[in-house]
Amino acid sequence: MTAAVLINGVSPTDPLQAIAVEDRGLHYGDGLFESALLAQGRVRLLEQHLKRLALGCERLGIAAPDPAALRSDVQRLSGSAERAVLKNVVSRGVGPRSYRPSARSKITRIVALYPAPPQPAGSRLALRWCETRLGRNPRLAGIKHLNRLEQVLAQAEWQDESIIDGLMLDTEGEVVSSTASNVFLVRGGVLVTPDLRFSGVLGVMRAEVLRLAKELGIAVSEEPVWPRDVEAASEVFITNAVRGIRSVTELGALRWTDAPIADRLREALDF
Amino acid sequence: MTAAVLINGVSPTDPLQAIAVEDRGLHYGDGLFESALLAQGRVRLLEQHLKRLALGCERLGIAAPDPAALRSDVQRLSGSAERAVLKNVVSRGVGPRSYRPSARSKITRIVALYPAPPQPAGSRLALRWCETRLGRNPRLAGIKHLNRLEQVLAQAEWQDESIIDGLMLDTEGEVVSSTASNVFLVRGGVLVTPDLRFSGVLGVMRAEVLRLAKELGIAVSEEPVWPRDVEAASEVFITNAVRGIRSVTELGALRWTDAPIADRLREALDF
Repeated sequence: MTAAVLINGVSPTDPLQAIAVEDRGLHYGDGLFESALLAQGRVRLLEQHLKRLALGCERLGIAAPDPAALRSDVQRLSGSAERAVLKNVVSRGVGPRSYRPSARSKITRIVALYPAPPQPAGSRLALRWCETRLGRNPRLAGIKHLNRLEQVLAQAEWQDESIIDGLMLDTEGEVVSSTASNVFLVRGGVLVTPDLRFSGVLGVMRAEVLRLAKELGIAVSEEPVWPRDVEAASEVFITNAVRGIRSVTELGALRWTDAPIADRLREALDF
Repeated sequence: MTAAVLINGVSPTDPLQAIAVEDRGLHYGDGLFESALLAQGRVRLLEQHLKRLALGCERLGIAAPDPAALRSDVQRLSGSAERAVLKNVVSRGVGPRSYRPSARSKITRIVALYPAPPQPAGSRLALRWCETRLGRNPRLAGIKHLNRLEQVLAQAEWQDESIIDGLMLDTEGEVVSSTASNVFLVRGGVLVTPDLRFSGVLGVMRAEVLRLAKELGIAVSEEPVWPRDVEAASEVFITNAVRGIRSVTELGALRWTDAPIADRLREALDF
């Protein structure tokens, strides 16, 4: 449950009765979201989150929220938490019963504070392969939109709590990401990550890792990735804006122990 | 705007503040919908709508709404309208910040009444080809889920009001449907419609048309359909539960005048 929430800058009287029944976010998933880490009173990578949100708005033809209003929301909620997750949802707003977006719709802007996820105990991190595939669509690839049924179905596949996340392939069999993180692998010293030209999300932490790798002189490649590439990798790690860089230690029968590249990146990340 | 709405069987005090901020329908498009025609006090094809909704719930692992409760909602709203559209949305309900569905979530059931669309003036019906493609995903194909950004983007492609709808291809170039209707074509006396194995919605009116065609002794084929099949067709028509069967008269440079098969089906439909 949210600890606190603002809808268009206003704290709702009752969070259970707060959103318009005709909001297009509900009817069509017509909107975008961001999930950021709030730590020591500071939203990490806030500029990058705002930039990706703006990209998503542009791609969907949604009026981007006023950055000043968004910053003000974030500021108001941040005060009350030492370590938390800030989630921002922007939908196209209330509209008539029609897929066609109306120029008259005014966006719905939600900023909500959630408890930070618990810190993992120990260094074991087990992934699985998901059976649910990601459909390909270049128009939706990269942005963090609200159409997330594939991720929902993928996470419903397993109940074993020792499995932290699952890797997802697209419908042609390329590796895209885990259900909620981007994925990196190391091949002959080169840091490789899926290019996400057909599906997946251009993660804020993914961009940060690519930037840091270049700074550290680590060669990087964004390219099509297949399961055999993951299986042959000397290191595999997953990244997202809330949990940073996490090295994978198990995937099916595969085991990884050392993760020198991930360690260097994590040290440089200051997260 | 809705003329009337019930949320979990209750009329909201304020439809603009009615849905929980953490509803998974809003955050992930985690749910389903139906749009039915209400005419002369009767919901057309209600049983078929309920059946498809149940199929969608099963596919997504959402507890299906109690049909008696749904029927009661529909009954209460139907009384106030002679001709209208009844839209039913079922989301997985309120849940924590996680793609993973919780067994504790209780579904959100919305039934809303909308004005019927205006009857078309004249018999001209022009379609276009949409540029936005439909991603393929067998797990989501056929059901009427809430992840509809592709349809939203497709309808945003044109403003010309003389164009009624647009035909959509999937990412491999197969014809799937229009943005809001199924599509049929006639080839050598055989009624052909896309098989929807990878994307699209198994329309209630599509099923009704296939049933009627068999009753009338018209050969039918559900198969992969390509743009060249549409272009070579002697008739093309689109179907949905609100507008019935509509013969296409224009598509780009193509023109169709007679529609004997569609005429026979429309006569048999009693819609």
